[in-house]
Amino acid sequence: MFQAGPTGEWRIETITAVRGPSLPQAAMLTVADGLLQLTNGAVWALRGHTSNLRYTTRTELTALDQRQASLGRDDARCAALIPIRKSAAWWELAQDERRAIMVEQSQHIAIGLDYIPAIARRLFHCRDLGEPFDFLTWFEFAPEHTAQFDALLVRLRETREWHYVEHEVEIRLTRAN
Amino acid sequence: MFQAGPTGEWRIETITAVRGPSLPQAAMLTVADGLLQLTNGAVWALRGHTSNLRYTTRTELTALDQRQASLGRDDARCAALIPIRKSAAWWELAQDERRAIMVEQSQHIAIGLDYIPAIARRLFHCRDLGEPFDFLTWFEFAPEHTAQFDALLVRLRETREWHYVEHEVEIRLTRAN
Repeated sequence: MFQAGPTGEWRIETITAVRGPSLPQAAMLTVADGLLQLTNGAVWALRGHTSNLRYTTRTELTALDQRQASLGRDDARCAALIPIRKSAAWWELAQDERRAIMVEQSQHIAIGLDYIPAIARRLFHCRDLGEPFDFLTWFEFAPEHTAQFDALLVRLRETREWHYVEHEVEIRLTRAN
Repeated sequence: MFQAGPTGEWRIETITAVRGPSLPQAAMLTVADGLLQLTNGAVWALRGHTSNLRYTTRTELTALDQRQASLGRDDARCAALIPIRKSAAWWELAQDERRAIMVEQSQHIAIGLDYIPAIARRLFHCRDLGEPFDFLTWFEFAPEHTAQFDALLVRLRETREWHYVEHEVEIRLTRAN
């Protein structure tokens, strides 16, 4: 769970509404496994869970696994949390239609591969938890890779897949200690 | 949600452990949308939610939609609730590997098509809710189609997909009124 409030191990630098409404401003973010009890002074909290892969083939997974970076690296002092919700039209598509848009037309996996291992990433699902977003993606990277991360976001947001994103917030953070 | 206990619109005829432990015996079953508060005397309850399609292609969906039967038909006085959990090995497979086993090798969609519109079906997901099962499938059919339903179960349980089912309970029901 991600909880924003007066305390936390990550300092919130900016909260930007990319599409749709923003989230309330807060000073710090706590990242915790499982369903943490909300602490006093919490401004907002977003829950999600890691789950099985929904689109990735074995070939793609092997390519990702060979290069994937892990979270929690010492030099990864920058992070981003990007909650998104996709439209009803997206969720009504059949599996092959979603994969064709996401993987083949939008090159979502290939674009991601261009930025690992510099950018470490973890996807959390929340559509089925009654949360306001469908996905939360958490990224960690070293300060010198900030421009690469910015480029990754620009490329993804130009894709056809992103036409289906109806709510997106971008939260940029730095490690507090 | 499905709640078993002393009251409900469906009479529980049998509860059978197909693989792994059974569920406690109970007299009646209540089927309710959303997250019902447990009523007094509830023996067990299983939660799930309908979700987007995870494997079905547009072509398969069109074939299903053309023949699909709706729940709640007057003559559908028999029902079955089949909770299943698949193994960790299943969930660690990539998307294309799961689809290959389920759709191509096991013919899960094709087998299902053979029994609609006689057998109406709805799938609920619960893996991401911290429930003891991954899926709950609810079936409704007229008494004269019971043998067809039995045959459907036999065929599915003979598939390679079912090698990955590590817990399955079969609950047979009849409408109480």
